[in-house]
Amino acid sequence: MQKLIEQALAGNQRAIARLITRVENSEEMAETAVSALYPHTGRAHIVGITGSPGSGKSTLVNELAKALRKRDQLVGIVAVDPSSPFTGGALLGDRVRMRDLSGDKGIFIRSMASRGSLGGLARATSAVIKVLDAAGYDTILVETVGAGQAEVDIASTAHTTLVIEAPGMGDDIQSIKAGILEIADILVVNKADHPGASRTVRSLKTMLQLGQGMSVRHHGRLMHVRAVSPNGNEGAWKVPVQETVAVKGEGIEALLDTVLAHKAHLQATGEWLEREKVRSRQEMEQLLQARLMARLEMKVPAEEQMALITAVAERKIDPYTAVSQLFTLISSH
Amino acid sequence: MQKLIEQALAGNQRAIARLITRVENSEEMAETAVSALYPHTGRAHIVGITGSPGSGKSTLVNELAKALRKRDQLVGIVAVDPSSPFTGGALLGDRVRMRDLSGDKGIFIRSMASRGSLGGLARATSAVIKVLDAAGYDTILVETVGAGQAEVDIASTAHTTLVIEAPGMGDDIQSIKAGILEIADILVVNKADHPGASRTVRSLKTMLQLGQGMSVRHHGRLMHVRAVSPNGNEGAWKVPVQETVAVKGEGIEALLDTVLAHKAHLQATGEWLEREKVRSRQEMEQLLQARLMARLEMKVPAEEQMALITAVAERKIDPYTAVSQLFTLISSH
Repeated sequence: MQKLIEQALAGNQRAIARLITRVENSEEMAETAVSALYPHTGRAHIVGITGSPGSGKSTLVNELAKALRKRDQLVGIVAVDPSSPFTGGALLGDRVRMRDLSGDKGIFIRSMASRGSLGGLARATSAVIKVLDAAGYDTILVETVGAGQAEVDIASTAHTTLVIEAPGMGDDIQSIKAGILEIADILVVNKADHPGASRTVRSLKTMLQLGQGMSVRHHGRLMHVRAVSPNGNEGAWKVPVQETVAVKGEGIEALLDTVLAHKAHLQATGEWLEREKVRSRQEMEQLLQARLMARLEMKVPAEEQMALITAVAERKIDPYTAVSQLFTLISSH
Repeated sequence: MQKLIEQALAGNQRAIARLITRVENSEEMAETAVSALYPHTGRAHIVGITGSPGSGKSTLVNELAKALRKRDQLVGIVAVDPSSPFTGGALLGDRVRMRDLSGDKGIFIRSMASRGSLGGLARATSAVIKVLDAAGYDTILVETVGAGQAEVDIASTAHTTLVIEAPGMGDDIQSIKAGILEIADILVVNKADHPGASRTVRSLKTMLQLGQGMSVRHHGRLMHVRAVSPNGNEGAWKVPVQETVAVKGEGIEALLDTVLAHKAHLQATGEWLEREKVRSRQEMEQLLQARLMARLEMKVPAEEQMALITAVAERKIDPYTAVSQLFTLISSH
C-alpha cells in the first residue's frame, strides 16, 4: 500500500487506478490512503458538472477536457452515477469517452456508481478526488447525472459548479430545478443551435434575476456556502449564462475562460479557502456519522439492534428512550 | 405540558395545535411529547402524497380528505414544503384549503415548512404525525412538494405512497422521476380529462413493467423496504395506475378504495409491521445522529470546532485524524 501511494504521488497512472480501486472497495483503505495523501492535496481546481440526462453533459465534459489539455493542464474526470448499479469502467458513456480521449496520458477517467448507499458513494467520490488531486491533476471534472440530493451534495464539494441545460427542457420543470440552479456558479445552455435556445437562455436569466432577492435556501449546507462570502455582495460573482454546441466544439473555449475566471475570482476574494472550509466541515460531519454507525455495529450485535427496532415498531418502547440506550452502549468503553 | 398532552390525547383541536407548535419549535419538547404519546400511536394509516408542482396534488388531497370524512374517518393533513421559508398557516395553498375544508371538526390541517435543514424538517414532520396519530386521527395525509431526496425520505415513512402525475409532464423528465416512481404504491394520473392523459397512463405502465425486473435501487433505505417483504414476490402488491379529475371529484372514490385495499394488503401480509420497522430504524438513525451532533456542540466549543475545520481546509491535519480527535472528545465523560 505504501509503495502504491508513492507511485500514485509520482503520477503513475496504473498505480493511481489500483489505488482508487482499493479506496472504493474499503473504507479502511480510504482512510489509510487519504491520511497519507492529504498533505499533497489542495492544489487541484475541482469543477462540478451537473444537468439533466439529454443535456449533452458528457460530450461537453469531453470537450472541456480536450480544451484544458490544449492549455497543458493534467485533467481528471470523475463520472458519478448514483442510479447505476454498475461499477468501474462498465458504464456505456465511459466506454464511448475512453475511445474519444484514449491515448492521451494527460487525462485520467474514472466512473463511480452506487454501492448501495448515497453516503458511501459520496465518501468514495471524495476520496477518489483526493487521490487525483495529490497525484498532480490540475483540474478535476466531476460529472453527476440527474437532479437529486446526491448531485447537490457532490456539486457542493466543488470549487466551481456548472449546471447544463438544453433547449426545450426548461419550462415545465423549472420549479423542480430550482434547487439545482441555486448551486450553479455558471449556467450553460448546450445544444444552442437547437430551436428554442434563446428562449431557454432568457428564461434562465429571468430566474437568476428573480433568485437574487432570495438568498435563503432550504439546503442547510448550501446556506453556509452563501453565508461565508467574506465580502458580502461587494464583488460577488454574477452567475453567467453561456451557450455551447458541444458536438461541434462551439463555445468551449469561451466557457473554459469563464471557468478559469471563476477560479481566479475565488482565489482573489478568499472564497477559495472558505469553500474548502465548507467542504471540510461537510466531510468531517459525514465521517463522524459513519464512525458513529461503525461504533454501533461494533458495540451492539445485530440481533440486539433488531430487537430494539422491533420493540419501537411495536410501541413497547419509544424511539427517544431506545436511542438513549443505544447511545449509552456506544459511548461506553 | 402534561395537561396539553392529555387534552391532545382527548382530541381537543386547540390543544393539538398548540402542542404541535411546541414540538416544531424545540427538539426537547418533541422528545417530551413523543415519549409520552408514543404508546398511543401506531393506529393511524399514514398516506404519503407526492408529485410535481402543477399536478393538482393539493386539490386531490382535499378531495381525498372529503371522501374519507364521508366514510366517517377523522383525517389529518400535513403539508410539507421543504423549499418554503414560511411557517405555520402562512402557505397560500393552506389558506385556500382552509376555506375549502373549514368548519369540519373531523379534519385537522397543518403546514410544515423548512427551518433551515432538511433533517430538522423530517424530524419535526415525524413528530407532528405522531401527535395526530395519538390524538385519534384515522388517516393522516402527508403531502410533499417536488421530487427531491426530502420527498423520498418523507414518503418512505408512509404506509402507502401515492405519486401524482399530470398529462404532458411525463415524457421529458422520466429519468429524473425514476427515483420517485420507485417509491409509489399507487400511481395517479390527475387531470385525466386533459389531452395526452392516455399517453401518460400508457407510458407510466410501460415504466412500471420495465421496473419490475430491477428490484435493486440506489436508495439504501428503500432497499430495506423492498427487501423485508416476508413473502417475496408471492402476493406482492402490483402498483396500479389510476385516473382522476380532482377538480370535478372524478375518480376519487375509486382511488380511495385502492388506498384502503393497499392498507388491507399491508395488514394481511404482515408488511404493515415490516414498514413500521423500516420507519423505526430510520427514525432511530436520525435521532442517533442528531444526538451525536448535539453532543459535539456540548463537548467541543464552536471556536475549537472552527479551528479544526480550518486546519483541515489548510491541509495541516487530515480529516480522518481530525474526526478521531472529535470522536474521542465526544465519547469522553
